[in-house]
Amino acid sequence: MRIALLGFGSVGRGIARAILAKDLSITVTGLADSRSGLIDPDGIDLAAALARKGNGDPCGLPDTSPADVVAKADYDVLVEVTPTNVETAEPALGHIREALRRHKHVVTSNKGPIAIAYPELRALAEANGVFLKYEATVCGAIPLIHALQEGLAGNTISRLYGVFNGTCNYILTRMAAEGLTYEQALAEARELGYAEADPTYDVEGIDAAIKLVILANTILGMQTTLADVERTGITLLTPDALQLAEDQDCTIRLIGEIVPEAGALRVSPRLIPEVHPLVVEGTLNAVSVETDLAGELTFIGKGAGSTETASAVIGDLLYIQSRHVQGS
Amino acid sequence: MRIALLGFGSVGRGIARAILAKDLSITVTGLADSRSGLIDPDGIDLAAALARKGNGDPCGLPDTSPADVVAKADYDVLVEVTPTNVETAEPALGHIREALRRHKHVVTSNKGPIAIAYPELRALAEANGVFLKYEATVCGAIPLIHALQEGLAGNTISRLYGVFNGTCNYILTRMAAEGLTYEQALAEARELGYAEADPTYDVEGIDAAIKLVILANTILGMQTTLADVERTGITLLTPDALQLAEDQDCTIRLIGEIVPEAGALRVSPRLIPEVHPLVVEGTLNAVSVETDLAGELTFIGKGAGSTETASAVIGDLLYIQSRHVQGS
Repeated sequence: MRIALLGFGSVGRGIARAILAKDLSITVTGLADSRSGLIDPDGIDLAAALARKGNGDPCGLPDTSPADVVAKADYDVLVEVTPTNVETAEPALGHIREALRRHKHVVTSNKGPIAIAYPELRALAEANGVFLKYEATVCGAIPLIHALQEGLAGNTISRLYGVFNGTCNYILTRMAAEGLTYEQALAEARELGYAEADPTYDVEGIDAAIKLVILANTILGMQTTLADVERTGITLLTPDALQLAEDQDCTIRLIGEIVPEAGALRVSPRLIPEVHPLVVEGTLNAVSVETDLAGELTFIGKGAGSTETASAVIGDLLYIQSRHVQGS
Repeated sequence: MRIALLGFGSVGRGIARAILAKDLSITVTGLADSRSGLIDPDGIDLAAALARKGNGDPCGLPDTSPADVVAKADYDVLVEVTPTNVETAEPALGHIREALRRHKHVVTSNKGPIAIAYPELRALAEANGVFLKYEATVCGAIPLIHALQEGLAGNTISRLYGVFNGTCNYILTRMAAEGLTYEQALAEARELGYAEADPTYDVEGIDAAIKLVILANTILGMQTTLADVERTGITLLTPDALQLAEDQDCTIRLIGEIVPEAGALRVSPRLIPEVHPLVVEGTLNAVSVETDLAGELTFIGKGAGSTETASAVIGDLLYIQSRHVQGS
């Protein structure tokens, strides 16, 4: 299977390292970061590209753009792992459209295009007889979308709720364990690389809300946008609130919740019993689903990280491979 | 999709009820319990069969045997949900062989044939171009095998461990919560229908051990038998032991564990921190896997029950349906 890899940051390099380390029968024939690109039908030397990137250099040639790679390279699957743009989903959205039109399968970890344009992209993929897969957009390493679409096929999901953001979970874990203030715990999360310089996207619940929109629109048959999510972040939480929770054998977690029948999507800090399976430590994610046949199930795992997200992308690639690559 | 349903106990009736309640495009053209059978290419009246069974009558006609249904009915998938025989796997094993030879897909919840004869059955399915699916044999409603085979494809699993038996978990939960003796908790489990009159199969860890053998042989590329599993049950545990565990913020659970590289399979009562995700309450099952890319993941859900096991069987049926039924 030949892939074009768009994005050579943490996730892209995680995928490249996994392809180098394992015998996955995957050849990379196109590669691009934001500044450069490479096209080679015989297979790009990933070790050399990783080395260039490690030295702070572009991964490829400056006269080859990501759009060139999408439009001109010879590949079966476009692997789109550039950063999420929640406003317009560009430039990823355009690249995905172009690849689907070229009858190429698409695997993405990019929340923007899936949250904003799933119905259009789904229809485009079907019209062109190719797969569109996006396991990595929600909860990193947890194969949640596979489990819901395949393992639990036939079930009706009445409620889906959980911890969708590792940064918030880390901050709340540390506030509860050490009595830190929100600001102290955030500073610690930044030092450890768990929070961005501008943490708004995480701590205001936007990241969790986007994941809910993706699950609602792709799995639960809803038609929602980010504006439909009732959303409260964790920035106003005090150590006192966490202490009060602890006095009741509870703790506070930022919970994202979908109740399909009520059309409800919400993200807010919630009181949960300490023994509840969703009370996970550190940067973990955890999701519970309530179903009619299977009852309640909970999935726990790492929600982010280079190799963890690569795991989800590779799961999608092998899914397509096992169903016979038909591209180009 | 046309199915032949072999076994009309708790699981078989759960499947029949789900087919009646949902629009799954599944027609039952063959049906058998241990005493009777029915064959009807136009589709069997499941509501009437459920009503007969509810009145204590056989589901079908006494002159039609399960073997007749397997050999003569016109179906795409054999759904084999008769009770597990851990010694010989019969009569299920013979029925599954016959269906595969007839180029029929097979979905089973029966641990015997998969634990005892997986390599042979897998080869037979491949030779005849059909699927052999067995999600329901391990951890009931948890789509563990789907998650490991598909979502986590590409990962190497270094360790798999968890709570595989709901009966033992219920007994241990009650001993810890109420200070009951093993005998008292077992009596309670029997009253609630969570334990058999002869509980040996559960409390001696045999059930958990069989599930380990299935996972080892089908997912982890090992070749093991029940005799390879180091096994200690829960019958000798005392309330004192549970109290000692509690003093260390731990509890005791019957843990099944596979370490592929060491060739190790074991089932034994183990001390676990109370906050560990595997510490689930009541009859729940919980399984953690350690992988190279995805890190550690935990899956929690109902390990048994009529509709819960039906959920796993239906997930397998829809998996086959989505990949185009080719049978007969």
